[in-house]
Amino acid sequence: EVVPTCERYAVRRLPFARLADGDVAFFERLMPGRVVTGEEEVKPFNVDWLRSVRGCSQLVLKPQTTAEVSQVLRYCYERNLAVNPQGGNTGLVGGSVPVFDEIILSTALMNQIISFDKVSGILVCQAGCVLERLNEYLEEQGFIMPLDLGAKGSCHIGGNVATNAGGLRLLRYGSLRGTVLGLEVVLADGSALDCLTSLRKDNTGYDLKQLFIGSEGTLGVITAVSILCPQKPKAVNVAFLGCQSFDKVLETFTTCRAMLGEILSAYEFMDEKCMELVERHLKLSSPVADSPFYVLIETSGSNSTHDEEKLNNFLEQAMASGLVTDGTVATDDKKIKASHLRERITEALTHEGYVYKYDISLPLGKLYDLVTDVRARLGQSAKNVVGYGHVGDGNLHLNITAESYSHSLLDAIEPFVYEWTARFSGSISAEHGLGFKKKQFIQYSKPRQAVVLMQHFKAMLDPKGILNPYKTLPSAP
Amino acid sequence: EVVPTCERYAVRRLPFARLADGDVAFFERLMPGRVVTGEEEVKPFNVDWLRSVRGCSQLVLKPQTTAEVSQVLRYCYERNLAVNPQGGNTGLVGGSVPVFDEIILSTALMNQIISFDKVSGILVCQAGCVLERLNEYLEEQGFIMPLDLGAKGSCHIGGNVATNAGGLRLLRYGSLRGTVLGLEVVLADGSALDCLTSLRKDNTGYDLKQLFIGSEGTLGVITAVSILCPQKPKAVNVAFLGCQSFDKVLETFTTCRAMLGEILSAYEFMDEKCMELVERHLKLSSPVADSPFYVLIETSGSNSTHDEEKLNNFLEQAMASGLVTDGTVATDDKKIKASHLRERITEALTHEGYVYKYDISLPLGKLYDLVTDVRARLGQSAKNVVGYGHVGDGNLHLNITAESYSHSLLDAIEPFVYEWTARFSGSISAEHGLGFKKKQFIQYSKPRQAVVLMQHFKAMLDPKGILNPYKTLPSAP
Repeated sequence: EVVPTCERYAVRRLPFARLADGDVAFFERLMPGRVVTGEEEVKPFNVDWLRSVRGCSQLVLKPQTTAEVSQVLRYCYERNLAVNPQGGNTGLVGGSVPVFDEIILSTALMNQIISFDKVSGILVCQAGCVLERLNEYLEEQGFIMPLDLGAKGSCHIGGNVATNAGGLRLLRYGSLRGTVLGLEVVLADGSALDCLTSLRKDNTGYDLKQLFIGSEGTLGVITAVSILCPQKPKAVNVAFLGCQSFDKVLETFTTCRAMLGEILSAYEFMDEKCMELVERHLKLSSPVADSPFYVLIETSGSNSTHDEEKLNNFLEQAMASGLVTDGTVATDDKKIKASHLRERITEALTHEGYVYKYDISLPLGKLYDLVTDVRARLGQSAKNVVGYGHVGDGNLHLNITAESYSHSLLDAIEPFVYEWTARFSGSISAEHGLGFKKKQFIQYSKPRQAVVLMQHFKAMLDPKGILNPYKTLPSAP
Repeated sequence: EVVPTCERYAVRRLPFARLADGDVAFFERLMPGRVVTGEEEVKPFNVDWLRSVRGCSQLVLKPQTTAEVSQVLRYCYERNLAVNPQGGNTGLVGGSVPVFDEIILSTALMNQIISFDKVSGILVCQAGCVLERLNEYLEEQGFIMPLDLGAKGSCHIGGNVATNAGGLRLLRYGSLRGTVLGLEVVLADGSALDCLTSLRKDNTGYDLKQLFIGSEGTLGVITAVSILCPQKPKAVNVAFLGCQSFDKVLETFTTCRAMLGEILSAYEFMDEKCMELVERHLKLSSPVADSPFYVLIETSGSNSTHDEEKLNNFLEQAMASGLVTDGTVATDDKKIKASHLRERITEALTHEGYVYKYDISLPLGKLYDLVTDVRARLGQSAKNVVGYGHVGDGNLHLNITAESYSHSLLDAIEPFVYEWTARFSGSISAEHGLGFKKKQFIQYSKPRQAVVLMQHFKAMLDPKGILNPYKTLPSAP
């Protein structure tokens, strides 16, 4: 059983109103049959995917339209009821579940595609569309989503945008700040803000939608998304390599980027400990000989002959120069899926017990040193200290596992990891966001004045603070 | 002589303080030798590049450091003196020159490169660096700037970011919202906001820097920029084509995008009228036979053999299927420059007299219909009605010339063009911004509630409204 967040962490409930029978009755009238009550029914919405945080909400609402979201928020704002917007509930920092009794506003039934234009590649859809479903829909039309991540089978596009999700394709297609063209957002008071344009370029005034990208549902509820989708590449190739040191991983990256250029779509690494866990818990096997480090390279291009030639030339040079000690290229779909063991590391880690997750941006040269230093610091008190991540983006996923959650282990890790990161001007959250678990550490990556300004924005857009309280920004001192 | 803006348009000066001798003395002490006074000396800073608007400032300040910008703004804020931040003064909507007597804060001497990292491709520099100089610097190290535009020889990177400049490489490298990684900004009250990180990914709180991108100096003065730069492509190829109709231009685009895929870096079009003006005024000549429409295609890739093969295959198919009636490929540098006549259309137009400039985003199928409709509507009252632009981005540059400025011609054009654009959910400013000339038309592209929210942001960040007044947002009713 997961310990309730408000017990594990000493948090004080803010003075929001408490849910009354009249409230439930109001919502029942507004959306009959789409109001979830009852402890057991609400439970899956109260606990996060990692089973690391747990709220005590008594109510889940499942609107289907923006108008319904507006009505819900207008009512909650009036009544001073706190609201926790929730997408696929796949977040890793406790941002997607309540801390106390916030009403859960789920986008699960807002799953309609609104339009797709094959000439421009612009998709408009509701916030609750599942990423993988969108990708399948687009593939039929010769396009793909510009982002891809391990949680794609459950995560909602609205949640992806609200958390500014990164993932595996960022190296190639850039961040959501560039690919999201428009948003429809319902503000705390229930008013709808329509910035849902489908234009690649629009310089008419301030770009309001950007403020909601990555704001984790604290400034507004995203109800619809307009996003620019790239063409489906005609050829996708994957190479899996073994390297003897992290320096070689980096040197291989520089060589690879120069030789593969515009077709390089992912450059991921994992350490031998990751491979061990994936092999043990998921019964997957490494396609190359045992090595201290593994690299997964993906290319996406429009001409398979050209792409294979580039990839083979690169591999030849990497092997000849000793950068890489073993390597294999997988071209058919089956092999591609097989070598996607990289995607399932998160899952393998959950089999090990409690996972302390860190998602750090660092200058490339420092990326793996953090893993080494943490491993040395924790010694026997941690079961595993593993590192993997997106080398192309300077993004390390540092994971520490233990049989169960322990305050003393947490104290040994934090703020050590954050101080280490700040020393090299890194980010303490590259792509996962701050949510509930990391909000108190924002000052390691942002100056005080920036945090104050963020608090001003929050106060302006949500003066009663009802939207996803206890998240993203630190509690006032 | 350019008519002062405040006379041509009936604008009322806001109740800012007037410059006093004591103010000039203060600035002289702060930055000796970098304070420009005297009508003749100040004049080039008062008039825009198009010679279409003219301010009446009596003072230009040229700070070299962020600390100086802070001190200037702190003083002006205290004294209630209005300030017009100015980069290379190449803006096209009257955003870069004063309307009345605003003090001009020029970034001309803030031209230092702070750092460049060859592994990550991240450049950090002061706001006054000229775009072309930066590109030259990067090319020496095997990289390029992610944006390129006609004004590159004069425009400052700070101004590019402040106006969210688009340009010729957007199709390939995306918008500045994705490539700008960090900003340093001085706010209206003189406080410096340090968001100058050099990380590709950072999800710690709201992305404040986005608010300043495209805000045209109305929310803060950008003093430094951190930007992600792509590798210099090993091979750049240019093809110049003639098409018999705009429909063929669009069909050619779809074919081209499918066949060139990841190496396509620009797809630009111009109509025959543009070609005529470029030939007449700049003595350039068309590399292909006379056609109603011309297309410029640029590819950038890492393997010249592969790229040429792709381009030739495409050209063969485009000619064989009748999409294109004449075409030529230019591979060496000289030819590339020659066929960049596309870049100099703006310049050629200025030789024709007064230019009414419109920069519109539209669904691709409607892009050229606007030119045809405006041409029919204006008949003999306009000297030229021409269209060119970035097909890949759905961005049309509609330009109308006349011997000199005339109110009645303007009335025939506006709001017709804006209403036409709004009917097809387009943007009345794709990349030029709103500045002074277009701010009253924002409602054609943004709902009222969005404009109100923008006004709240302005009031929060610049409560006295001293930063670039009379720009971007409409005057209060």
